[in-house]
Amino acid sequence: MMEYVGFIAASLTTLSFLPQTIKIIKTKDTKSISLGMYMMFVLGVAFWLIYGLYTGDMPIILANLITLILSSIILVFKLNELFGKK
Amino acid sequence: MMEYVGFIAASLTTLSFLPQTIKIIKTKDTKSISLGMYMMFVLGVAFWLIYGLYTGDMPIILANLITLILSSIILVFKLNELFGKK
Repeated sequence: MMEYVGFIAASLTTLSFLPQTIKIIKTKDTKSISLGMYMMFVLGVAFWLIYGLYTGDMPIILANLITLILSSIILVFKLNELFGKK
Repeated sequence: MMEYVGFIAASLTTLSFLPQTIKIIKTKDTKSISLGMYMMFVLGVAFWLIYGLYTGDMPIILANLITLILSSIILVFKLNELFGKK
């Protein structure tokens, strides 16, 4: 039973970044997005990926690989808004 | 060694929501924030909390309790922007 709860939890928190990524790609608007959040979050997810690779834990590797890709896209858009050519 | 990597990963991904929460409380601007993301994310973190409580895993309970509080604040501000009194 608890495996299902864990699977649902991991799927929701991982896939939740998809609607935010799509919204930003469509609108190019990242004004209310926090640069601090996504710098910390991308770094944290990268650490989770290292942890998963080292312990050989497939769910942790898969979930954090997807989250790393999605949250990195958001970070790039935010950096581009702040430092990109005007 | 890996406990440290896991601890750093959990701390970064949990505390990363703090700068986003502070930015939204200050600016009241949630325009580029995705409602879909935070509805899915808050639900997912709640599932992680149930998972942690059931398995008695303190780090999972603590990390997800903090994240639940912070991400719920963001969700409330987003709902208020969309459905609150104009």
